[in-house]
Amino acid sequence: MTEAWPDLAGRFRDGVHVLALRVYYEDTDAGGVVYHARYVAFCERARSDCLRLLGLHQSTFEEINFVVRRMVCDFLKPARLDDLLEVHTRFREMAGARVEIGQEVMLKGNTLFKADVTVALVDARGRPKRLPEEMAERFRQLPES
Amino acid sequence: MTEAWPDLAGRFRDGVHVLALRVYYEDTDAGGVVYHARYVAFCERARSDCLRLLGLHQSTFEEINFVVRRMVCDFLKPARLDDLLEVHTRFREMAGARVEIGQEVMLKGNTLFKADVTVALVDARGRPKRLPEEMAERFRQLPES
Amino acid sequence: MTEAWPDLAGRFRDGVHVLALRVYYEDTDAGGVVYHARYVAFCERARSDCLRLLGLHQSTFEEINFVVRRMVCDFLKPARLDDLLEVHTRFREMAGARVEIGQEVMLKGNTLFKADVTVALVDARGRPKRLPEEMAERFRQLPES
Amino acid sequence: MTEAWPDLAGRFRDGVHVLALRVYYEDTDAGGVVYHARYVAFCERARSDCLRLLGLHQSTFEEINFVVRRMVCDFLKPARLDDLLEVHTRFREMAGARVEIGQEVMLKGNTLFKADVTVALVDARGRPKRLPEEMAERFRQLPES
Repeated sequence: MTEAWPDLAGRFRDGVHVLALRVYYEDTDAGGVVYHARYVAFCERARSDCLRLLGLHQSTFEEINFVVRRMVCDFLKPARLDDLLEVHTRFREMAGARVEIGQEVMLKGNTLFKADVTVALVDARGRPKRLPEEMAERFRQLPES
Repeated sequence: MTEAWPDLAGRFRDGVHVLALRVYYEDTDAGGVVYHARYVAFCERARSDCLRLLGLHQSTFEEINFVVRRMVCDFLKPARLDDLLEVHTRFREMAGARVEIGQEVMLKGNTLFKADVTVALVDARGRPKRLPEEMAERFRQLPES
Repeated sequence: MTEAWPDLAGRFRDGVHVLALRVYYEDTDAGGVVYHARYVAFCERARSDCLRLLGLHQSTFEEINFVVRRMVCDFLKPARLDDLLEVHTRFREMAGARVEIGQEVMLKGNTLFKADVTVALVDARGRPKRLPEEMAERFRQLPES
Repeated sequence: MTEAWPDLAGRFRDGVHVLALRVYYEDTDAGGVVYHARYVAFCERARSDCLRLLGLHQSTFEEINFVVRRMVCDFLKPARLDDLLEVHTRFREMAGARVEIGQEVMLKGNTLFKADVTVALVDARGRPKRLPEEMAERFRQLPES
């Protein structure tokens, strides 16, 4: 069976998760550009969709929740209304109950925003939870396409 | 004891709840004005704060939840960055499990946005819940100041 | 040339514009459902994308701007995190400088939210602008697929 | 003349700008806590209001714009619906066309979120603009109360 909206959760391309998203009025501000906090939300959408494509979204995997602990954000160039952006997501390091993720918001090959994201794994009660090896394996080898 | 931030939840003035709020960058869009869906959120802030001042916020009163069923919204004039707005809230009619609320977003005495809001009362399971007479009484007679 | 992300702006289906969108964390609230003002934004995304597909987006057509004057919103059932929603958009009536649009947010064939939207056409200075017949014609006959 | 809403833009307290803000439904997500990108917006509100109180908001001072270049964000503990938060803002370092700002979102004396923010000063065309000494002076010595 074909999916009705095949690319809505993005795609894997060369081992990177790529999510396309459009800039709407709601994302912009009176400066005529995308409001800076929106990039943080765009990255969260991309992480959610990457996990969705991997079949790991939302506690479906051993009741693990992913909580953002740290984000180092670089705002390089502004995006504007109607821009068709891509969010690129890479899993960089996994150790214990933490995962380091690199994300970039791109426009036509240029990086507009870059974030190094530290995500903690916690159980339903919020206690640290060790990353299962099976999950780590899937993060290490994102599909090629 | 004095409250640290006395007017943060607004005030009653002549039987109307008045909430002041500032327009920040996050509220505006690339058109240079407040994004239209923000007025809907501004009204929800005002209803929450009105209930807060009445001591009825958030299921504190017999586990009643307030759910918006209908909003008739008129967008009259645009608000802009840095505007200091007031949201005026009036309870208009109460019948059964419904409350009709009239709200206006004002700037220096001009109405920018107007909404007739129908709110349903439901219990924790989402079933309709009759408005208790004591609560209706408080809505009918909002404090004068 | 094939588009990289073909369905991102939705599709026409039986003369209706259909936009698919995912519910992310940013769209939900502590009640566990989609925050009510988000439906208003979802409808704006859909109108933008419908105009985009028609080649009429953003003043590309005779410097006409579309401004929402009125929305009658019915909140019927809640959407939740991860739901894959469709926004259906129909042009209903066109007269003078106004267009009446009917929109529905659907989940698996059920209508969760319904809005009757009155949009005014204005020029760059905000003055009413008559709907050009050529544009009206395109609205009347949305593509079949 | 007394201001109608005296504390809406916060206050200076011991040389720190303090902005009070309430957590509304719009700020929360289905996890029952404040959506992480909201803290980034809360910090922007506080910087805007701090500049407002200093009389430096929005290009009123020699057409200078403040653009966020970098944010290092630590998400320490979650805020929840109805929480009354305080955002504390301190100017840390000024050099050339950059200002380093430290911000914290606090709840009853506990830090929930912490950000080191690098802001660039640019002119109307987006070119770097040296921080005027008079402005630096005001940042260095925020009022005591």
